[in-house]
Amino acid sequence: MNFLEQRILKDGVVKAGNVLKVDSFLNHQMDVALLKAMGQEFHRRFAHKKITKVLTIESSGIAVAYPVAEAFGVPMVFAKKAKSINIDGDVYVAEVPSFTHKVTNQVIVSKKFLSSEDHVLIIDDFLANGYALQGLISLVEAADATVEGLGIAIEKGFQEGGKRMRNLGYHLESLAIVESMSAETGEIVFQAQEA
Amino acid sequence: MNFLEQRILKDGVVKAGNVLKVDSFLNHQMDVALLKAMGQEFHRRFAHKKITKVLTIESSGIAVAYPVAEAFGVPMVFAKKAKSINIDGDVYVAEVPSFTHKVTNQVIVSKKFLSSEDHVLIIDDFLANGYALQGLISLVEAADATVEGLGIAIEKGFQEGGKRMRNLGYHLESLAIVESMSAETGEIVFQAQEA
Repeated sequence: MNFLEQRILKDGVVKAGNVLKVDSFLNHQMDVALLKAMGQEFHRRFAHKKITKVLTIESSGIAVAYPVAEAFGVPMVFAKKAKSINIDGDVYVAEVPSFTHKVTNQVIVSKKFLSSEDHVLIIDDFLANGYALQGLISLVEAADATVEGLGIAIEKGFQEGGKRMRNLGYHLESLAIVESMSAETGEIVFQAQEA
Repeated sequence: MNFLEQRILKDGVVKAGNVLKVDSFLNHQMDVALLKAMGQEFHRRFAHKKITKVLTIESSGIAVAYPVAEAFGVPMVFAKKAKSINIDGDVYVAEVPSFTHKVTNQVIVSKKFLSSEDHVLIIDDFLANGYALQGLISLVEAADATVEGLGIAIEKGFQEGGKRMRNLGYHLESLAIVESMSAETGEIVFQAQEA
């Protein structure tokens, strides 16, 4: 079991509705030492790739992507979830169905910050149905840039997003893959990974 | 002139409506090496303070706060701008008038992550009218925690937020204070700072 899986067992809380709360160390309060170690692990797993840019999505992806960008020595870019008054009109746009599936949100990134020369490592904190990740991939493809890999902190292995990304041929690395979890017992079971 | 002021002169763009665009290195695309240096500079300026937690607000505050938390070796917490389905009901809430002054938004932080034992350094990327910063201060005060300082990347010195914070007695450190800027000429003038 790796350091992130251990931390999830220690401080993660399973809630009804397939919710895994990791807000004490990953996406509300953040343990920067843990994030740093995660960044180094992503760097190890994608070390053979030529990465020119790390792309993530606001808000909780930013602190996961930061140490990855630091490890690779490249800029990071975060996609924004809605049109902001501080963004130029010249943006790439992708549609992302929301968690509730009732509405579709837009994610945007300025055209200035993704080009056909870029080799992009996409980073996010969670992967469940994969809609957000698909939106980020669409932004990279809209720029004719190359998706070199997808790095996820916690994948919900019992939802379809990870399988779909791997079937599409993407190099997806998830530091922790939850195989099953129970809000009743609090039990969390991870999928075995190679060391 | 310090390294951040130099970078603003090099890559910042003044737009009409008192907008200073720094999205190529600070709040859309991010230069992680620059952020790291900023984190070390904030640490130097607040080194005499006992800091137990760094508090910021999503989204662009997160990457500014990260290296500060790293330098102090403490957790960071980011306040959220609206009620999220992933947040427990047990939150501190502050009201923040929006940029347009037409609506009021809520910022929230889970009560789990701020306590009366905490000595908080509040970090954000911009300070203009100070409403967001006032909201963060209110969250800290609601927890009976102590505001040890306010660290800002770029203060618009021609707006009232910084003056108000200093008049209230807060220890405010802004790495760059814009005294004046012109969308017509592109000129940016910084307030002189002690080395």
